[in-house]
Amino acid sequence: MRMSELLGERYKEKPADCSIESHALMVRGGYIKQVNTGVYTLLPPGRRVTQKIERIIREEMDAIDGQEVLFPVVLPADLWKESGRFTSVGKELVRLTDRMGADMVLGMTHEEAAVHLARDAAKSYAKYPFMIYQLQTKFRDEPRARGGLIRVREFTMKDAYSFHTTQADLETYYARCYVAYERIFKRAGCKDVIAVLSDSGMMGGRVSHEFMLLTAIGEDTLAICDNCDFKANIEACASVVDNSALLATEALTLVPTPEMATIEDVARFLQKPCNATCKAVVYQRNADESYVIAFVRGDLEVHETKLRNTVGAEVHPAVITPESGIVAGFIGPMGLDTKKITVLFDRSLEGICALVCGANKQDYHYTGFNVERDYGMVSYVDVARATPGGICPVCGKPSLRISNGIEVGNIFQLGDKYTKSMSMQYLDENGTLQYPIMGCYGIGVGRLAASVCEESHDEYGPVWPITIAPWEAQICVLRADQEEPKRVGEELYAALQKAGVETIIDDRAVSAGVVFSEADLIGAPIRLTVSPRNLADGMIELTTRDKRIKKQVPVAEALAAVLELKAQLFAELNQP
Amino acid sequence: MRMSELLGERYKEKPADCSIESHALMVRGGYIKQVNTGVYTLLPPGRRVTQKIERIIREEMDAIDGQEVLFPVVLPADLWKESGRFTSVGKELVRLTDRMGADMVLGMTHEEAAVHLARDAAKSYAKYPFMIYQLQTKFRDEPRARGGLIRVREFTMKDAYSFHTTQADLETYYARCYVAYERIFKRAGCKDVIAVLSDSGMMGGRVSHEFMLLTAIGEDTLAICDNCDFKANIEACASVVDNSALLATEALTLVPTPEMATIEDVARFLQKPCNATCKAVVYQRNADESYVIAFVRGDLEVHETKLRNTVGAEVHPAVITPESGIVAGFIGPMGLDTKKITVLFDRSLEGICALVCGANKQDYHYTGFNVERDYGMVSYVDVARATPGGICPVCGKPSLRISNGIEVGNIFQLGDKYTKSMSMQYLDENGTLQYPIMGCYGIGVGRLAASVCEESHDEYGPVWPITIAPWEAQICVLRADQEEPKRVGEELYAALQKAGVETIIDDRAVSAGVVFSEADLIGAPIRLTVSPRNLADGMIELTTRDKRIKKQVPVAEALAAVLELKAQLFAELNQP
Repeated sequence: MRMSELLGERYKEKPADCSIESHALMVRGGYIKQVNTGVYTLLPPGRRVTQKIERIIREEMDAIDGQEVLFPVVLPADLWKESGRFTSVGKELVRLTDRMGADMVLGMTHEEAAVHLARDAAKSYAKYPFMIYQLQTKFRDEPRARGGLIRVREFTMKDAYSFHTTQADLETYYARCYVAYERIFKRAGCKDVIAVLSDSGMMGGRVSHEFMLLTAIGEDTLAICDNCDFKANIEACASVVDNSALLATEALTLVPTPEMATIEDVARFLQKPCNATCKAVVYQRNADESYVIAFVRGDLEVHETKLRNTVGAEVHPAVITPESGIVAGFIGPMGLDTKKITVLFDRSLEGICALVCGANKQDYHYTGFNVERDYGMVSYVDVARATPGGICPVCGKPSLRISNGIEVGNIFQLGDKYTKSMSMQYLDENGTLQYPIMGCYGIGVGRLAASVCEESHDEYGPVWPITIAPWEAQICVLRADQEEPKRVGEELYAALQKAGVETIIDDRAVSAGVVFSEADLIGAPIRLTVSPRNLADGMIELTTRDKRIKKQVPVAEALAAVLELKAQLFAELNQP
Repeated sequence: MRMSELLGERYKEKPADCSIESHALMVRGGYIKQVNTGVYTLLPPGRRVTQKIERIIREEMDAIDGQEVLFPVVLPADLWKESGRFTSVGKELVRLTDRMGADMVLGMTHEEAAVHLARDAAKSYAKYPFMIYQLQTKFRDEPRARGGLIRVREFTMKDAYSFHTTQADLETYYARCYVAYERIFKRAGCKDVIAVLSDSGMMGGRVSHEFMLLTAIGEDTLAICDNCDFKANIEACASVVDNSALLATEALTLVPTPEMATIEDVARFLQKPCNATCKAVVYQRNADESYVIAFVRGDLEVHETKLRNTVGAEVHPAVITPESGIVAGFIGPMGLDTKKITVLFDRSLEGICALVCGANKQDYHYTGFNVERDYGMVSYVDVARATPGGICPVCGKPSLRISNGIEVGNIFQLGDKYTKSMSMQYLDENGTLQYPIMGCYGIGVGRLAASVCEESHDEYGPVWPITIAPWEAQICVLRADQEEPKRVGEELYAALQKAGVETIIDDRAVSAGVVFSEADLIGAPIRLTVSPRNLADGMIELTTRDKRIKKQVPVAEALAAVLELKAQLFAELNQP
């Protein structure tokens, strides 16, 4: 490719609407152009990056016996009605009708389509296990599209579905896929990726992992134990506290707490520690606006996703009306109308023998509240958010660290949720009909590209790993208007292409500043600079985009030097 | 791949709902599974075929300086409003709204998206010409989905868009693309493909060609001159007639024609030749149900697409109501209310001096009707369908042949329809703003796969060209339950794969009948049969799916023989 012909502009200035670096660089470098909120066109450099990622993914999926298929983007709603997700999934599922008035959806994930395909094709146990995958466009009507390709509404996804006759077989395959994912991220040059336990959310199923690129701009929050191997999305991290210092009982006493709006104010006023208070957090169910009050230890927060999973319904922070009977600021367990209000106790309250809590009366709290003694037996739930320095639910040490991450892939053990609801059965060895169990495995291609860019860039542009760089090498010709550099550049260009090095040449008669700044935005890992000054010594300059290597090479040895460097860079990324 | 692991069933029986062979074979062979009307999942063999077609297309598009991009499937309606197509295109354009209520469409073609991308990126003449292309899923809400992948609602398409500063430059590029298309079809093994002039339809623009696979089941009708090079879609073929034998005039005479419902009845009753009659064909505009009456020579038919293009609006065959004042069966030019009815005269009537025509009066016709003398001067239009043996509009000889074809690709010279409506401009060498002109170029991937299958099959299955076959070679092990054939089969399988031959092995302990019939459905061009009988002589059998080659080969020479055969088969298809 020639820079003179490459479609797209490259920009010096950071666009105003880009909050994260990878987004800004991919716009500035002419990789992506926004078409709609969260919807982008990929320009040639962007498409080249995603194609290379797709190739790596295909190779790794094939290596674990995946069979590539292609499911439709537009699916009949009937399939989603079979699984129950036509109604259970919210507005992110785009619903539409065709010319005959039939309901359809835009596939945002393809469990239903996979079962539809497989239920005819795998009626005997002898066909199991198998895995099918596709690379296809998906659309999710995401309300919070942001960060360029990090969180979009339309994206190319690799989604894979495996089918098994036993849980043990699923677990074996799940482990193979886990390792394949590690290889994919390694090969794509995505370095700081960890797998964390995750919440299965709308997918159903029990065990799932997310592969997270650790980065401050990630919008997922992770709990990582520095003492053991435990790593989880904070949504899936059990909150564990130590209440052994809070065993002293007191009498239940109504105390005036005039104009104390927050639990911190009340604790300070009553000279109690925050962790001896019982905080009320009020939500409403989306479906009927009915109230849900979660009581949690005063120094902790409720995690909305954990609450949603506990309640088993979509919820939102409450609007407390006078008619509700709820006394905002003074809410406590005692006296709430549990016929109208769902009351939950987080397990952080378990074992605290004397709590400060609201009295459901304006300007009054109780002290000395003991849940079992004063309220009765309750089933504690886990809805609190894990905290930095909190107790690891696996090793029990107070060694949790909280980090941010971008989810670059996920794997789920789905169980039989879809095969049962969609009546997929096979005959086992005894001639008995059984439901197969499934796993599913996703990677967003564009998000992975953006994540690598986020992890590997400097202030001038992306520092692409050679495996997914739009071009492996870039020839920067300085003074392309002069005969000698132009000729040497073109000869090198021809030689590199012939040798199988994907090369882009800047053949334009523009200033050295423009040549270098645009080369930085293209981010090819290998750079050959052809300038009159070096040519006077019969040399070109060979550098890497990451600045590790910078050396003069005789023109005649340039090709060999590039080939050697290319092999070295690929080897560093475990490329087969 | 192993047949024992390949996902999908193969069926002996032809499915009831398949009217064409390729559809039946692709269902029977486990290539496709219907998900919705005109919407299919591709199973692994089907996906492999389309991936190989995609690779050929990419190589040829890159060879004519194409730059691959990726446009969104879901586009904002605003872009289609800019071009005017949001309203001008009918129900085949799927419209939907997102969670914010914004109008969106499913991209059925991407001229708007291409202009949206290019108008920022090509503001100077120095950037021109350039071509961008994508391979992406498209959805058209086609009312007549049929024939498996031949006519579907969702499909993968290669669509390309070129941008130019002069018509001459567009024409030069158009010719390059024309040749690239010929190479693509040749390489994909699609043999009987011709390029015909076409009607540009909703795309706009002037010159366009369709690449047609000639086949009886094609739903396009083509006019081909056996005397010169003229070839056109019948929609785009001017109808030319010779009226030199019909110059005698007669007096206009009202004659009773009781209960003569058709022009043939009238002609027979009045003892006039059919080509001396003036037939009325009645349509209504879809928009307002207003009537359009086209008069055409009695032996010819009106072509609805030509009529639609002439009227400039969507039309449908009329329902003639009593209120309309139209006397069905006796319609003639004289006395029609041209304020309410659009009246058109096809040029087949030009020069006939005495016509039989309806009198707009129940049970009466005129004889001796002379258009100019009795009705006045008219502008003749071209709405008649060309006929077999008709006159070629280029060479003037009565040498038209009418054939059927499947459109496997199309190329359009679009002009400035989209750049003007969407305000895309560049600065020319004089600093003046100009609108670039565009070409666009499409190939449906799945349709091409089905077309090749339609052209290349026998009663047992597809006979895939090696370039797009799901596997290049198939090893059929007979008596896979015996140690010797199993071992030799597996050794050959390993050796072929190592040598880069894409191989599928039937390693199942099933009957020879099942092995061969399923191999026929897979359609790999090279077959190696490993059987106890041949092995007794140290031989395997090497055959081609098209039955041209059938020979015994010593086991030790099998690999070399396959490699030689593979090279030969590729060479026959001009594979580079």
